[in-house]
Amino acid sequence: MAKEGITPRAQDYAQWYLDIVRGADLADYAEVVRGCIVFKPTGYAIWEAIQRGLDERIKATGHVNAYFPLLIPKSFLMKEAEHVEGFAPQVAEVTRAGGEELAEPYVIRPTSETIIGYFYAKWVHSWRDLPLLINQWANVMRWEMRTRPFLRTTEFLWQEGHTVHADEQDAERETLMILNSVYADFVEKEMALPVIQGLKTEKEKFPGALRTYCMEAMMQDGRALQAGTSHNLGQNFAKVFGIQYADKNNQMQHAWTTSWGVTTRLIGALIMAHSDDDGLVIPPRLAPTQVVVVPIYKSDDERAKVRTAVDAITADWKQRGIRFHVDERDHLTPGFKFNEWELKGVPLRVEVGPKDVEKKSVALASRILLEGTEAGTGGRKPKQFVPQAGLGEHIATMLERIQQALYQGALKFREEHTFEAKDYGELKQAIEKGFARAWWAGSREDEERIQEETKATIRVLPLDQPGGTGKCVYTGKEARQIAIFARAY
Amino acid sequence: MAKEGITPRAQDYAQWYLDIVRGADLADYAEVVRGCIVFKPTGYAIWEAIQRGLDERIKATGHVNAYFPLLIPKSFLMKEAEHVEGFAPQVAEVTRAGGEELAEPYVIRPTSETIIGYFYAKWVHSWRDLPLLINQWANVMRWEMRTRPFLRTTEFLWQEGHTVHADEQDAERETLMILNSVYADFVEKEMALPVIQGLKTEKEKFPGALRTYCMEAMMQDGRALQAGTSHNLGQNFAKVFGIQYADKNNQMQHAWTTSWGVTTRLIGALIMAHSDDDGLVIPPRLAPTQVVVVPIYKSDDERAKVRTAVDAITADWKQRGIRFHVDERDHLTPGFKFNEWELKGVPLRVEVGPKDVEKKSVALASRILLEGTEAGTGGRKPKQFVPQAGLGEHIATMLERIQQALYQGALKFREEHTFEAKDYGELKQAIEKGFARAWWAGSREDEERIQEETKATIRVLPLDQPGGTGKCVYTGKEARQIAIFARAY
Repeated sequence: MAKEGITPRAQDYAQWYLDIVRGADLADYAEVVRGCIVFKPTGYAIWEAIQRGLDERIKATGHVNAYFPLLIPKSFLMKEAEHVEGFAPQVAEVTRAGGEELAEPYVIRPTSETIIGYFYAKWVHSWRDLPLLINQWANVMRWEMRTRPFLRTTEFLWQEGHTVHADEQDAERETLMILNSVYADFVEKEMALPVIQGLKTEKEKFPGALRTYCMEAMMQDGRALQAGTSHNLGQNFAKVFGIQYADKNNQMQHAWTTSWGVTTRLIGALIMAHSDDDGLVIPPRLAPTQVVVVPIYKSDDERAKVRTAVDAITADWKQRGIRFHVDERDHLTPGFKFNEWELKGVPLRVEVGPKDVEKKSVALASRILLEGTEAGTGGRKPKQFVPQAGLGEHIATMLERIQQALYQGALKFREEHTFEAKDYGELKQAIEKGFARAWWAGSREDEERIQEETKATIRVLPLDQPGGTGKCVYTGKEARQIAIFARAY
Repeated sequence: MAKEGITPRAQDYAQWYLDIVRGADLADYAEVVRGCIVFKPTGYAIWEAIQRGLDERIKATGHVNAYFPLLIPKSFLMKEAEHVEGFAPQVAEVTRAGGEELAEPYVIRPTSETIIGYFYAKWVHSWRDLPLLINQWANVMRWEMRTRPFLRTTEFLWQEGHTVHADEQDAERETLMILNSVYADFVEKEMALPVIQGLKTEKEKFPGALRTYCMEAMMQDGRALQAGTSHNLGQNFAKVFGIQYADKNNQMQHAWTTSWGVTTRLIGALIMAHSDDDGLVIPPRLAPTQVVVVPIYKSDDERAKVRTAVDAITADWKQRGIRFHVDERDHLTPGFKFNEWELKGVPLRVEVGPKDVEKKSVALASRILLEGTEAGTGGRKPKQFVPQAGLGEHIATMLERIQQALYQGALKFREEHTFEAKDYGELKQAIEKGFARAWWAGSREDEERIQEETKATIRVLPLDQPGGTGKCVYTGKEARQIAIFARAY
């Protein structure tokens, strides 16, 4: 039974998503600023958790942060042929400033390869300056026609890494290392979201890149969501901006560059992968609040006793690294609070009432149904009654169980909704329900026709290939690689 | 003796500042984007340290972070009379986007009171929604005529808190709490920068505020630098944007709002308050790198022995929370490295050579001259020879001594450069050398005349007042308050 105000997923998945965003108080529509949202505190706290997890990994792999200008001379964007084609139609332009018309307009960065390329050309001189490994946390802007909170907004937040390398091999190593050891590692371990890592086709790659790698996740409607991309830019931007270095033989060489980014759309991925008809579900490792404690009382006397017990119970939680909140609001019923915290996706709820104080126990409810437990009446999550002694340790264990259950659940869902497609008919059927895995030897034009006819695209050519050959799902030609087709966000 | 490439402070303070910014590799001029800089990794790491220290305090005092749109409809800026006068001449305008002219231009936020006020009017309904305590980390843009790295740039980074309160008392309490417990606490304890907290005059207050509080620090040329401001906005923005709430008697009331911010100019303050003719000086608590270890060797054999010793010496440092870096670059001499790390302001340097390995000691050099030590030949900082046993603890103590010495040094400098001014002549003399403390009962026009004639302004009416009355330094009238006059950045 779904919550009031939440459209069930089965009925209208798109509306369910919007209901969760509103119900869990994650964002507000900035209707006065085209296609923008306000990241409300509950939503922004998830982004802060994502930032922490990524920033840690980005730094642990030898990168440092910096900050480059928001505005880019419009002419910069025009220098790389594919890049201008990809981004010029989407930019917002600053044409007046300080009360005067500008001689040359600026664009608000849609991505920063060009402006950063300009500076890197000034900074890189010798092979000793390489690799140059810099990341930036920033806002970017792309004027979108159709927007959806977190998934596609005119302004969004992201990190963009930009690195410079001496040769192709080192650039390629970086591109793949970021994909695997930074992005996939974070998304799978912290966000409990299994991803398929691989290559984009020519049609889907980043404008200006030599090769684009990506990780793709499956949402609960079977669609794909691109959760992060890592580009080997080859020497394209190095040649356009003149990023050159003197090699060990004192010969000038054009450098190789990479760029890679993940955005606030990860918040959208989080919602769509794990949440249910009762509201948001946040994996414990990422959750800003992991445990909410709801004191239950009817009199001031009971209230005092319960509060004393809550203080004692939670005394060691902070030290254990458990992020918790005691909901002491007086004007709301426990039932209202249970509902609200469920809607907001807090992984565990602890209830402490006068009887619990007497029995030296608490009632503990998991946000999701765990294996070995059964749903209560009306599909409600079952409560456990747990002794107060050792509760901190029990909670730490429960949080880890929930984390694993979410990952395993998402993986199982993906496996159950991934189908081998031997021919175009099977491919069309498969993408109605999820991912189609198929041999592929088609051209860019073939891929475009498939998209026109089915709205599905090749999301990824997985790094993990079976080897050997098979018959191309579309052309019937001998194919050497498997592709994943899906409709996508 | 100053370093090569660093103009001595005594010779040209403004040039010295620019030399430090360049020499310590903190920023690059973004000459292709009017008035902007690139925050290079070394400079940005200082901002990250500032962010950590402030964000912690902002959250500990009950605030949460959110994110509001970069773009503001131009008409919003026009709604509050003083606000438009203050900011309209300085904004950058987006007039084209997605290939089309916009019906109404947007401005890039110069500050966010208006756009946030619009949303707060949607979110606040009842007294139970108050106080609403939100902070935002963001980039902002003000089209400046004369720019200087960190101190005044077209785009800068900051945090801006925006809060809503039921009444004047609560708004005033918040405004002062932020000034004292968040801003001054951080700047004095972490940045080792003593500040004078107080009120701005009408002339100097924020456009649209009822009252602006600020903290002012003294730089080494005796000028003042405003290190942070906290505004009680009264009901001005609440009335313009309709931020209303139903009180306990169910009567609609206009709320009271506050806003407060500190910016990347704190990096400029840090440089100008502590650095010397040898380069940057960073207080240990803020320093991204607190200790640099320079291994010294002449052969591969020595190198191996020294490396083993360094590993053993530093084994417990991470656990002690000491942020250190071992400079293993092979192609640079120790002398070059000493010079570079001094220029970059790392508080402590540890040298480990073959003799140190034998003697089970290290050479330890402080970035600044500490009391009880004497400068070596040519003004060089003296080295201590310290046993390897217990070095971690010794270093922790040294870092704390340096932190305190920097604060005490800056405080002493301010006291020595603050002068009581009994009349206008004395005031004129005082501001040549530092701060003038003077009784004040003048008008806004008087203050403007003083500025025209002396280039000094009232930086702050200190919260800490002597009481009683005195003769106004300019008008000779009876005055009830002391003002601090100074030339300012």
